[in-house]
Amino acid sequence: MTLDWWRNPCQPLDPIARGKAQSRQDQLTKPRGALGQLEELAITLASQQGRERPCIDRPWFAVFAGDHGVVEEGVSAYPQAVTGEMLRNFVRGGAAISVLAKTLGATLELVDLGTALPLEPLPGVLHLHVGAGTANFAREPAMTAAQCLIALQAGRASVERALASGADLYVGGEMGIGNTTTASALACALLGLPATALAGPGTGLDDQGVTHKIQVIEHALALHRDGCDSPQETLRRLGGFEVAALTGAYLGCAQLGLPALVDGFICSVAALCAVRLNPACREWLLFSHRSAEPGHVAVLEALEARPLLDLGLRLGEGSGAAIALPLLRLACELHDGMATFAEAAVSDRPV
Amino acid sequence: MTLDWWRNPCQPLDPIARGKAQSRQDQLTKPRGALGQLEELAITLASQQGRERPCIDRPWFAVFAGDHGVVEEGVSAYPQAVTGEMLRNFVRGGAAISVLAKTLGATLELVDLGTALPLEPLPGVLHLHVGAGTANFAREPAMTAAQCLIALQAGRASVERALASGADLYVGGEMGIGNTTTASALACALLGLPATALAGPGTGLDDQGVTHKIQVIEHALALHRDGCDSPQETLRRLGGFEVAALTGAYLGCAQLGLPALVDGFICSVAALCAVRLNPACREWLLFSHRSAEPGHVAVLEALEARPLLDLGLRLGEGSGAAIALPLLRLACELHDGMATFAEAAVSDRPV
Repeated sequence: MTLDWWRNPCQPLDPIARGKAQSRQDQLTKPRGALGQLEELAITLASQQGRERPCIDRPWFAVFAGDHGVVEEGVSAYPQAVTGEMLRNFVRGGAAISVLAKTLGATLELVDLGTALPLEPLPGVLHLHVGAGTANFAREPAMTAAQCLIALQAGRASVERALASGADLYVGGEMGIGNTTTASALACALLGLPATALAGPGTGLDDQGVTHKIQVIEHALALHRDGCDSPQETLRRLGGFEVAALTGAYLGCAQLGLPALVDGFICSVAALCAVRLNPACREWLLFSHRSAEPGHVAVLEALEARPLLDLGLRLGEGSGAAIALPLLRLACELHDGMATFAEAAVSDRPV
Repeated sequence: MTLDWWRNPCQPLDPIARGKAQSRQDQLTKPRGALGQLEELAITLASQQGRERPCIDRPWFAVFAGDHGVVEEGVSAYPQAVTGEMLRNFVRGGAAISVLAKTLGATLELVDLGTALPLEPLPGVLHLHVGAGTANFAREPAMTAAQCLIALQAGRASVERALASGADLYVGGEMGIGNTTTASALACALLGLPATALAGPGTGLDDQGVTHKIQVIEHALALHRDGCDSPQETLRRLGGFEVAALTGAYLGCAQLGLPALVDGFICSVAALCAVRLNPACREWLLFSHRSAEPGHVAVLEALEARPLLDLGLRLGEGSGAAIALPLLRLACELHDGMATFAEAAVSDRPV
């Protein structure tokens, strides 16, 4: 594998499976189009999974955790210790994504890329020790070139494990105090937008906190402007370990042929980064929800994404994607299980 | 039971269960409010089911079928035979709601209130023979007073069967060629709006078809204007058997204490009718989705309803409510299964 493996071609979608799925949808006992977005979803999954009747039997959830040096600027409502504490909560089954994975029958993989406070080895967690959190990007680049490469590769490796275990859908999630600041800065640089257009309350800043967060991001954007001369360099300077891992995961999904269901604001920024690194990966990405974080709208628009849900979710961890998962499953079940007009002897509308 | 049983009091929600559920939500390991609409959903279900930790283990689906005399005015894209043909499809398991009930582990009850074409007895279907479809409301009242009472009572009886079987959630659905015309006319009369504000393509009319449908509805509204002096009389003149049954079902849910998840346009018009007959029933109604039928928005606004999904669904049968059901289940699972900050030793934000 080359150092810039993400430039390698993505898998093509299957036009034959797509055509068969489209034809099947048009014959099912319902007015054509009456299942709305679920019809297109079934057809898209068919083209991704390369079969007329797709299914979501073995979803794979991976949560990437990492800390952010920029937290020392006072941009988060929660203390930085929470990143590690939540990793323990994931392991014990008490976090939202733990409950969702269990309820939905998904495999849950936990990848610790590096926390600010030292963490004891946790059962079932892959500790990668990329660093004790990123550096403070308000002062210097968040990652070294090596750290960024390791984090990208960690995402791809997660997809390889998913495929080896027979997964048919990939859901990435994240945990990292401060990561809405990271994601906002990264999206500003990639989209050429000011911080006011993208920064929001994150886990719960008040108006004064958001104003300060905007100032920190604007300062960082000015500091790194000349250096951000490529998507990769932008990711290295303004990103985070878990954001880079998610970026690598989405690119890996597209190159290895596994559909990815994207979670909220931070995951969508990672998806944007992936699309900038290799535009062909876009067609392997499904978008689960529009989060309450105000900047999400602009990122989704840039990705031409129409998410399934809009419930005011803003929890992260991959939870919004998990909550949307039953919609994918029901789209597949309806596509597979419904009778055609001919099978059911139901009169179709006159042509 | 009196003839106007629907005026009887509705069950009160449980304020103690609501308070406990609210308190629990605020202690779970997530930023407060981060689960968006799912938090309020869990709290509302707690107050309806009278327990701090609600659950949806035994959902009951009831689909009411009936034909509409107004179809002779040429207001539907599909032939009237489809109502009966789809009943057979429900029984054989080939319809969307059949697939959804099986996948979601719901009981599916089928109630035939009366089709225009004679139908052989179908296994598992309750045939009520209220009439061979309604009369054409473009010329005369759709129902006799007796028919309307029987249909309302059929809805309540369905709720009684649901409760007897231990159901914890009620989902009503409908099948009836022409019933978007019926529902539009009924909503126009109840809301004092012109047909242009509410009528839409239904199962797939073209622009010319919608224009004709609007003319038919306007004519009927003028014909019945003086007669529609109460919600009950409006329902009798402009409604349909299945719409009246759904109205009775929602009223029954509120009087007997079973939360109801309302489907799309036609079900929402029945819910509006129920709220006009007995306003206190409103707090037992949950709204699943905003359908593609353009008039749905005005009906939802009149009900102050914020539905969970907006996926362009327009199939009926209760399918949209069924598709939203996993969101209710996940709201309950998260509410029940997540750890509190204290249990997980996770730092809460500073007060």
